[in-house]
Amino acid sequence: MKLIRFRQDGMVKTGVIEGEKYLDTSSFGEDYNERFFETEGLVRLQAFVNENRAVLPVVPADVSLDCPFGRPSKIICIGLNYADHAKETNAAIPKEPIVFFKSTTAIVGPNDDVMIPKNSEKTDWEVELAVVIGKKASYVEEADALSYVAGYCLHNDISERAFQLERGGQWVKGKSCDTFAPLGPFMATRDEIENVDALRLWLSVNGKMMQDGTTANLIFNIPYLVSYLSHFMTLLPGDVISTGTPAGVGLGFNPQIYLKPGDVMELGIDGLGTSRQLVKAWQ
Amino acid sequence: MKLIRFRQDGMVKTGVIEGEKYLDTSSFGEDYNERFFETEGLVRLQAFVNENRAVLPVVPADVSLDCPFGRPSKIICIGLNYADHAKETNAAIPKEPIVFFKSTTAIVGPNDDVMIPKNSEKTDWEVELAVVIGKKASYVEEADALSYVAGYCLHNDISERAFQLERGGQWVKGKSCDTFAPLGPFMATRDEIENVDALRLWLSVNGKMMQDGTTANLIFNIPYLVSYLSHFMTLLPGDVISTGTPAGVGLGFNPQIYLKPGDVMELGIDGLGTSRQLVKAWQ
Repeated sequence: MKLIRFRQDGMVKTGVIEGEKYLDTSSFGEDYNERFFETEGLVRLQAFVNENRAVLPVVPADVSLDCPFGRPSKIICIGLNYADHAKETNAAIPKEPIVFFKSTTAIVGPNDDVMIPKNSEKTDWEVELAVVIGKKASYVEEADALSYVAGYCLHNDISERAFQLERGGQWVKGKSCDTFAPLGPFMATRDEIENVDALRLWLSVNGKMMQDGTTANLIFNIPYLVSYLSHFMTLLPGDVISTGTPAGVGLGFNPQIYLKPGDVMELGIDGLGTSRQLVKAWQ
Repeated sequence: MKLIRFRQDGMVKTGVIEGEKYLDTSSFGEDYNERFFETEGLVRLQAFVNENRAVLPVVPADVSLDCPFGRPSKIICIGLNYADHAKETNAAIPKEPIVFFKSTTAIVGPNDDVMIPKNSEKTDWEVELAVVIGKKASYVEEADALSYVAGYCLHNDISERAFQLERGGQWVKGKSCDTFAPLGPFMATRDEIENVDALRLWLSVNGKMMQDGTTANLIFNIPYLVSYLSHFMTLLPGDVISTGTPAGVGLGFNPQIYLKPGDVMELGIDGLGTSRQLVKAWQ
């Protein structure tokens, strides 16, 4: 299944994508959130769609999309998880995953505007494959880890490099501003993606390709990350793990290139769709 | 008001402390969570208690306490915010607040057991004053910052020093294990604390005083922190800011001292009560 959430009549509603059609699943009566995932929501939703497909309202293709799932308890990000990106930022290849959090208040829809924060001169892009957790995970073995994954989603891990690297201490300051986590267009359930270790991911700014990588180059792959993280904290259903970005971010250029109002980012991952964000100044 | 949440009949119920009495406010019909705080819950709760005081059930004093509020969207922690603690850990006095997150899955009640994680040899204590946000805060001025605070709470910011400092990258790995955030016994509303900048805070292990400081020594005080953080992320009602720990953590001793099964931590802050945690091995 491909899960979406969209805006209509002043509400956020749930849906699924089938072929070219966006179907409204509001009548299922549940948001796609922690409770949904932990109560076999994906199985129940599939049964519901199978039974009701013919009568589900079709949503116009130009509907405004929200993040495809409800607010997670946490967004965990992995830093420097592609060797080429570590190199471009003059960082060593990590021996263990570098872990940081992103405030969930940063979440927006896949095509929403990205706002450059006040006092920011170094807002940057990062196309990433995000993993959505399907069930509570604590001390999970790597061999079992994929069974804890509900699905995958496109994520632009927007980063303010001065806030992240020049303001003292930890990275979370440069990762958590409002609109810094466009997620979607949809969450693909695990079965939709044949080989998650060989997906092209790319990002362009104003039509110019800046990042063009493949998840084949992940230093720590998804089963490893789920298992690893579950040894430091409990992962809850609906939690997001963003797996890192390949080379081509603005920080890596000489001179560095950062976003300015009017810029347009477009990004995509094989099988996970595309998104597009217009950059605006904070207002 | 002093807000509590307690365990009874397999549920978590809400209450308030008045004098020596614990009153059950379940009939108010709301948890103390984001929605409660953002809808003037404190004002409505006070009116409810005033009207119903005589008929509210009295809870036994030995009731099992939960965290005094529902799960926040985030726990933000401030690192090295007491000069004496920065010194004992051989860290420089920060020029700006050091910010990190703690997973909300770490939250437990004030007197719950603290579990030493698997593969841990360096689990440590940190008594801290935690601030609970009362309304949505974005780009708040320091002069207005206190009006965004709902109240205060005692917090033991349990930390695994090897996970935090020796496993690559960011601190969140050493801060987020299950049971690493005992919060409570109660949340005191802002009006309950006459001078939040002059509170003694202390922590003992097996009856021996290890930390004994005062919030007068905070490098960055509460209005500064609320304002500062709100320039990097939106603070939501119910969010927690833990303001840092004074000297006397296990990491600061030579040789270092870490928790072992059977140890008992007791801690307290003037006006915010005391808590007590028995340390156990992960099972």
